Amino acid sequence: MVTVAVDGNGADLGPEEVAAGAALAAAGGIHVLLFADAHAIGPQADGVEVTDAPVSIAKASDPAFAVRSTPDASIVQAARAVADGRAQALVSGGSTGSALAAGLFNLRRAGGIHRPALALPIPRPGDRPVLLLDVGANVSCRPEHLVQFAHMGSAFAQSVLGFDDPRVALLSNGEEPGKGTPELKQVHERLSGSAGSGLNFVGNIEGTQVMESVADVVVMDGFVGNITLKLIEGVSGRTMVAVRAAAMRSLRAKVGGFLLAPSVQGLRQEIDPETTGGAYMLGLRQMGVVAHGRFTRRGFARAIEVAVRGVEEDVIGRTRQALQEAGALRATPERNGDSPSEPTDTVSR
Amino acid sequence: MVTVAVDGNGADLGPEEVAAGAALAAAGGIHVLLFADAHAIGPQADGVEVTDAPVSIAKASDPAFAVRSTPDASIVQAARAVADGRAQALVSGGSTGSALAAGLFNLRRAGGIHRPALALPIPRPGDRPVLLLDVGANVSCRPEHLVQFAHMGSAFAQSVLGFDDPRVALLSNGEEPGKGTPELKQVHERLSGSAGSGLNFVGNIEGTQVMESVADVVVMDGFVGNITLKLIEGVSGRTMVAVRAAAMRSLRAKVGGFLLAPSVQGLRQEIDPETTGGAYMLGLRQMGVVAHGRFTRRGFARAIEVAVRGVEEDVIGRTRQALQEAGALRATPERNGDSPSEPTDTVSR
Repeated sequence: MVTVAVDGNGADLGPEEVAAGAALAAAGGIHVLLFADAHAIGPQADGVEVTDAPVSIAKASDPAFAVRSTPDASIVQAARAVADGRAQALVSGGSTGSALAAGLFNLRRAGGIHRPALALPIPRPGDRPVLLLDVGANVSCRPEHLVQFAHMGSAFAQSVLGFDDPRVALLSNGEEPGKGTPELKQVHERLSGSAGSGLNFVGNIEGTQVMESVADVVVMDGFVGNITLKLIEGVSGRTMVAVRAAAMRSLRAKVGGFLLAPSVQGLRQEIDPETTGGAYMLGLRQMGVVAHGRFTRRGFARAIEVAVRGVEEDVIGRTRQALQEAGALRATPERNGDSPSEPTDTVSR
Repeated sequence: MVTVAVDGNGADLGPEEVAAGAALAAAGGIHVLLFADAHAIGPQADGVEVTDAPVSIAKASDPAFAVRSTPDASIVQAARAVADGRAQALVSGGSTGSALAAGLFNLRRAGGIHRPALALPIPRPGDRPVLLLDVGANVSCRPEHLVQFAHMGSAFAQSVLGFDDPRVALLSNGEEPGKGTPELKQVHERLSGSAGSGLNFVGNIEGTQVMESVADVVVMDGFVGNITLKLIEGVSGRTMVAVRAAAMRSLRAKVGGFLLAPSVQGLRQEIDPETTGGAYMLGLRQMGVVAHGRFTRRGFARAIEVAVRGVEEDVIGRTRQALQEAGALRATPERNGDSPSEPTDTVSR
């Protein structure tokens, strides 16, 4: 049985909602160590073991500093449980910044990995989701980071999302190999060449194509990734609001909107971010998932389940193997300005 | 009377559609010099003067080279007409890359401008449009470029779009001033300080906020800008398609969709990119507009009208004045690797 360490603080709906999600996951046969304010969540279901951890650093403005200086914070305790072997995966209840920092300090980078990345599956209507990475762990990336992200994303899409031979693309300002920043052109060259061995690399795609069925894994740096995921969120939300407003313009439109409502509700469920469980920290020695702060119990349960799937399918081992076969592992264990204990570039959402 | 030089080649619907747009604009009292295949478009309306120019470089893979080596290309002839004073503004019928290159070579950069930028007003449902720049003229930007873009965009939004004291923001991965790339942090500092004088700078915004009513002008480099505009296009289009598909799922939904159709059609018109006339080349000595290749005659007419408005409202002079007052003009007329005749970074859409 897989044990998952869950940080119960930081969720918008409070630790009770995370606890309810943990109970759902436990009912499915998962063992959960829940680190949260024991008083706030009250008695728990079978399979959920609570450690009282009322201190939260989910809103800390400097997550790396907060993680280092607050050993009793719930996310730090949860990450330590994974590092100590008491659990096999980490799930955080909301703050990306502190989860990334706690993950880096405690779970630590996997051997040969330059930088961990945050990977987010985005639901697409009538289609399987597209995995975007990096969506915010690294503001600036060197070409070798992006090359690793491509392999990390592909291995994750295969082992956890169950995609057969996932199509990997680079997000750029044009489809031609010559498009993009100088760094991106280098990545394109390396993924097309021998470093791309084993990878189903389909080249560059444009912004219009992210939601089309042309790629399963889309690679970008964390700055562009954060903007990309938030544009998708904002534009799709705003469009749905505009359609709803259009359905209020006349009596005819109101009746139409009423009749259409159940189908649109179905669409809303189809593209609900809770179905994918959140963002995944790839490149660490153990599996880590950051659920969205806005999630309900259903989303938190899903995050815990997907974390378990990652452990069972050995996403860490598979990623390492893919990188090794492609010759894309970092040769030297350490490098200047790239220490494993300094997640200076982490961003929160 | 203002005269506009129009390149009739490169539009998806052919030179006839551009000519029809020119005729619409001419009916409104604008004088148009149309450079296109005279045989293809046939006899023209009053106020439209046709120069036979069948050579098109709209699809050239290296626009800068094509512009230099094809003096009889329609876009080059149109740009030269503006440079020679036969017209006061340039409108291109579709290819951003060749329009930018022809604009740079012939219209040339305005004094004190580091780099021209491509500015695109994006319609927002139930709201005034938001001006994004740079959406593709410069893949990489230095901080001083972005500082100028902020002033150029603000002056354009005031004089051409008619916005009073436009709110200017930087697109970043978080609202806090410390978020973003090192370059972006510098820009934030400069726009908050004395270089921002006269500017209504509202700080950083995230991707979710682009379509919200928090800023009128959003500044970014051309790589992020291209991805941003194409994500907006792709995500809003895909969401509308998904809503349409939802309206086919049952008889009830079909009836609902039928009743709702006129209102949704109204929304579609509201966010129609044709209403804003296309993308604007800012930072040149004269006004230039790149209409979208997919436009109908209505969009081309609008592009011509907005170009005239730019001339009448003296957007070039106002931009220069704003930059001068902010102390953001380039001190030296020339700089290494930044020659005005080398638009190496131009991208096409």
